[in-house]
Amino acid sequence: MKVGIIMGSQSDLKVMSEAAQVLEELGVEYELTVVSAHRTPERMFDYATSAKQRGLAAIVAGAGGAAHLPGMVASMTSIPVIGVPVKSRNSIDGWDSILSILQMPSGVPVATVALDGAKNAGILAAKIVGVTDQKVSDNVEKFMQDMKDKVLTSANEIETDGWESKI
Amino acid sequence: MKVGIIMGSQSDLKVMSEAAQVLEELGVEYELTVVSAHRTPERMFDYATSAKQRGLAAIVAGAGGAAHLPGMVASMTSIPVIGVPVKSRNSIDGWDSILSILQMPSGVPVATVALDGAKNAGILAAKIVGVTDQKVSDNVEKFMQDMKDKVLTSANEIETDGWESKI
Amino acid sequence: MKVGIIMGSQSDLKVMSEAAQVLEELGVEYELTVVSAHRTPERMFDYATSAKQRGLAAIVAGAGGAAHLPGMVASMTSIPVIGVPVKSRNSIDGWDSILSILQMPSGVPVATVALDGAKNAGILAAKIVGVTDQKVSDNVEKFMQDMKDKVLTSANEIETDGWESKI
Amino acid sequence: MKVGIIMGSQSDLKVMSEAAQVLEELGVEYELTVVSAHRTPERMFDYATSAKQRGLAAIVAGAGGAAHLPGMVASMTSIPVIGVPVKSRNSIDGWDSILSILQMPSGVPVATVALDGAKNAGILAAKIVGVTDQKVSDNVEKFMQDMKDKVLTSANEIETDGWESKI
Amino acid sequence: MKVGIIMGSQSDLKVMSEAAQVLEELGVEYELTVVSAHRTPERMFDYATSAKQRGLAAIVAGAGGAAHLPGMVASMTSIPVIGVPVKSRNSIDGWDSILSILQMPSGVPVATVALDGAKNAGILAAKIVGVTDQKVSDNVEKFMQDMKDKVLTSANEIETDGWESKI
Amino acid sequence: MKVGIIMGSQSDLKVMSEAAQVLEELGVEYELTVVSAHRTPERMFDYATSAKQRGLAAIVAGAGGAAHLPGMVASMTSIPVIGVPVKSRNSIDGWDSILSILQMPSGVPVATVALDGAKNAGILAAKIVGVTDQKVSDNVEKFMQDMKDKVLTSANEIETDGWESKI
Amino acid sequence: MKVGIIMGSQSDLKVMSEAAQVLEELGVEYELTVVSAHRTPERMFDYATSAKQRGLAAIVAGAGGAAHLPGMVASMTSIPVIGVPVKSRNSIDGWDSILSILQMPSGVPVATVALDGAKNAGILAAKIVGVTDQKVSDNVEKFMQDMKDKVLTSANEIETDGWESKI
Amino acid sequence: MKVGIIMGSQSDLKVMSEAAQVLEELGVEYELTVVSAHRTPERMFDYATSAKQRGLAAIVAGAGGAAHLPGMVASMTSIPVIGVPVKSRNSIDGWDSILSILQMPSGVPVATVALDGAKNAGILAAKIVGVTDQKVSDNVEKFMQDMKDKVLTSANEIETDGWESKI
Repeated sequence: MKVGIIMGSQSDLKVMSEAAQVLEELGVEYELTVVSAHRTPERMFDYATSAKQRGLAAIVAGAGGAAHLPGMVASMTSIPVIGVPVKSRNSIDGWDSILSILQMPSGVPVATVALDGAKNAGILAAKIVGVTDQKVSDNVEKFMQDMKDKVLTSANEIETDGWESKI
Repeated sequence: MKVGIIMGSQSDLKVMSEAAQVLEELGVEYELTVVSAHRTPERMFDYATSAKQRGLAAIVAGAGGAAHLPGMVASMTSIPVIGVPVKSRNSIDGWDSILSILQMPSGVPVATVALDGAKNAGILAAKIVGVTDQKVSDNVEKFMQDMKDKVLTSANEIETDGWESKI
Repeated sequence: MKVGIIMGSQSDLKVMSEAAQVLEELGVEYELTVVSAHRTPERMFDYATSAKQRGLAAIVAGAGGAAHLPGMVASMTSIPVIGVPVKSRNSIDGWDSILSILQMPSGVPVATVALDGAKNAGILAAKIVGVTDQKVSDNVEKFMQDMKDKVLTSANEIETDGWESKI
Repeated sequence: MKVGIIMGSQSDLKVMSEAAQVLEELGVEYELTVVSAHRTPERMFDYATSAKQRGLAAIVAGAGGAAHLPGMVASMTSIPVIGVPVKSRNSIDGWDSILSILQMPSGVPVATVALDGAKNAGILAAKIVGVTDQKVSDNVEKFMQDMKDKVLTSANEIETDGWESKI
Repeated sequence: MKVGIIMGSQSDLKVMSEAAQVLEELGVEYELTVVSAHRTPERMFDYATSAKQRGLAAIVAGAGGAAHLPGMVASMTSIPVIGVPVKSRNSIDGWDSILSILQMPSGVPVATVALDGAKNAGILAAKIVGVTDQKVSDNVEKFMQDMKDKVLTSANEIETDGWESKI
Repeated sequence: MKVGIIMGSQSDLKVMSEAAQVLEELGVEYELTVVSAHRTPERMFDYATSAKQRGLAAIVAGAGGAAHLPGMVASMTSIPVIGVPVKSRNSIDGWDSILSILQMPSGVPVATVALDGAKNAGILAAKIVGVTDQKVSDNVEKFMQDMKDKVLTSANEIETDGWESKI
Repeated sequence: MKVGIIMGSQSDLKVMSEAAQVLEELGVEYELTVVSAHRTPERMFDYATSAKQRGLAAIVAGAGGAAHLPGMVASMTSIPVIGVPVKSRNSIDGWDSILSILQMPSGVPVATVALDGAKNAGILAAKIVGVTDQKVSDNVEKFMQDMKDKVLTSANEIETDGWESKI
Repeated sequence: MKVGIIMGSQSDLKVMSEAAQVLEELGVEYELTVVSAHRTPERMFDYATSAKQRGLAAIVAGAGGAAHLPGMVASMTSIPVIGVPVKSRNSIDGWDSILSILQMPSGVPVATVALDGAKNAGILAAKIVGVTDQKVSDNVEKFMQDMKDKVLTSANEIETDGWESKI
């Protein structure tokens, strides 16, 4: 099972590549490309309607401003679509990106993550793959354990050395 | 020249019919139907890509929530698209409707009007038609004069009779 | 594979039952109960940490105001958690519910849907189950086709009978 | 047919010149000047009331903060007025600029574009001119095709060379 | 010295009449009428440019949505203009009314009061008149004393009778 | 007649000094000092209750965050108080400063100007003084004329030399 | 130890009485009265400066709109002040109430609770009293246990009887 | 009596250390460490449920984004919890941090302070300790007096030397 990562513009790549990186770390195959809802609508149609046949388990779609890519793709496929609101250059502090991805009408869900939350989108895709792929599920659990360990180490150092040394 | 009026759902008809009514009043031909970006994406593609050939001068598109209809249609036609943010049942006070129509990326404009401003969308479409249709332009000017006269009458009555009688 | 539906309070049941109804319609098994992050934290811990072993494929969690249930549950399980921001009585137009579910820190994703979007949460859960369950995937596609057909019928009636008869 | 571009202050020129540039690119004649609603109200009146006779097809008006220029001009002419909310130095993240241009009362539409969206305002003006000017309409379609080609090239490069080389 | 009260539409009269009532109570002469920035721009010009000669000491101007009346009037007179943001039917919770009155550019102040704060606008006008009119100043002080007395009475009753009897 | 300028902290001086400068320019006498509502409440009481006797015609009060100075001072004097919402270091984009000054309860008006609008506060104070001081009123009118002349010069240069030379 | 409950106006009593009720339930003595920052500033000064001597352990202060009461009282006493933002009639969805209580400057904290959260303010006051009063602390723990039991009962009923019977 | 200071991540230390510093200044003992709601939920449970036995009088908890730490801790202890909304790197201007801490459901209060208001959280904790610890209460009063003196000195200098020398 593979995850598709798409974004409205190459300028979103810096944010969206975090989804690719974490999927790699979690042992999930992915493909990544640019698909613009407003500049290449036909390409978006083809991408969305062929996604399931091409073996995608989920799609991570990022866009900013009046972000239509995640919602439009979700309307044309039965696989889960994860939307990443990108705080692009022209976005109003990210509110437009968030609301135009999150507030989808009844019947057409987009799994929305935090502003610029491409890493979380990748982890969510891995959790979805992990529903039936035990290997990936184990990787996710290890990932969660690693996060915990880092916090415990940090807490331990602060308690031992004093916070003044960590600032 | 004809104006196309579309909306994402029949539930938007109460708001969007005001565009039809004012176009009728201003002597502009129109067609009205339902086209859903998320439920009938193919229909939306056909509507947008054939709009110019079918003789439409402008399209008035209304939608609520994560409103993708106006922007998607605008991405597939060279005629002007006017977007009406509808304060639908699930909208967050209209903010989602406004931002997902207004904040279009560079290259793909949508002429956005006020929340639930379908009447203004119709007038704007008539102003566009009126750029080369003198008859319609005259009707718009008469419409503006009528508004002015109503305010002057109202002001006159208040000044003559006192505001206490008008409350 | 079964989907768990939980909510912070019985007062969220009216909204959250839509997730149950659509899962039933899509042929997905589910369980539904009340788990409060703030009033029954131990119960929440037990629910989250045992979810995977109990055979849940995904959890749909709804809460309002400073909504901590979806995020806390997501921090304790490797299965996907879908968050439903509920516009509860004390919520500030839903903004608190949305932001406290959506804006999760890096490493702990919650798949957030629209305000009061429990139905979409149910469909998203079915899409996740459908990644490997062809029967459910077919049901989702039929569901999408039915939505499309309803819009086409509505459009056809408006075009044939005129919008005046539909208002 | 000519398009008028006006702005409340020379400090808006950096944003508003993008409208001029794209109109030039699309083969549409334009004039550009400064007209302040609050500092030169008489000049604004003269500009607006003479616009149609001077042969303008549309007006692109940009302003920031409590932005009254687009709406006031629209109230005094029957040609379409396109409003550009400018995120000026004293604007509150652009919200004041947007709301004071977008939320016009019934009867007086302003075709509002995105925050700092002067380029889109120019394209929209060209689309309006293109309703009856086939040459301009062709230019707009070529412009849209060029945008599409750029995305396809970018997508192709990413797919061929890998995203790591593009970051 | 007289105070002018104007509003964009007769529908604002219910809110704006509170300014008239409190001015009467405070012994300040006033005139009240309807002046629409967008429907009667010439009338607005005449009103504003003649205000000082006609003996007005201050103008109270109320409007809603993209509210241009207070700011435009302020740009054409040297007497103080008090703006009342009205939460009109189409306003987005009043934010548009507030921002389009409050956020005036440098050089053109509008004394803005709270949403629907016409009563406070009237008191502010009286305070301005009272700068040199001792009679009016005394009335304002008496008004403030009366408010204080009402609170003291209410507090006394609650302390004496218990709050349970006052709910 | 003199105008009092106060601010909650010396850190507001950079913004608030613009009120002093424009009053000087407009020939209005002023005094300027620091009065903190939260750190020197007794001093604030003395300042407000003695303002009228000390011959102040109006008070310009600036503060940021939960800004209580303008409203508290207004509650203890019958002279007009002008509030300047300061976008201080800890303010949330200025929203807290604006709302805690603007939204005063019925009976206690504060004449609020734009965020960081100290210059406009000074002009407004001069307009108030100018109600009965013809000299100051003339200065205000000359100030407005100067602004107009600057715009006309700027417009003339752009029209003559082309906008390309002004960017 | 006694808790003081104050509010800006008797119209806040419906909300604020919930603080009184829960304090009674938790065995904490209280007094309740009306103290208006803007209408009775001297009374507010007296109340705040004498609070500690009169034996108050904490003050619960509620107000709406530009709510200055909690912050002003906090600036004049060394005992903890709990602020309740009240969504009063003229408040803008409660945002003004929240921000003008929450965003206090450095040095003058107000313990702010949720919008209309008077009950939580009462519980917080009891928790403060309970720091050294074991009886009250026990009551708080029993209160928390009761909440938990209610949720467990509700969950049990839903699981046993099915959610359909609870809607 | 000791105060516990916790934060969701070491990256919050720069903000949260201000609580430690002011507690030191006010003579209140404290402990400081990292406890993450989402990365170390078990550690959070242990910390919260043992807080009272370990002799803590109050807990200061800071977190950003979808900030669950203060609310979750408050749900598991009867001692007062003070929440500090931190404007972390991924926060949307702090709104998410504020709302997810402030808007706690009925029964589970968090004493919320201003955005990044860790210093005020520390002072508030000291005020709570000072309810029964006269030494600490005296320190708080001295702290308030010092703030007052600084403002008076600053005011005196400005009045004596002129504001021009202080800018």
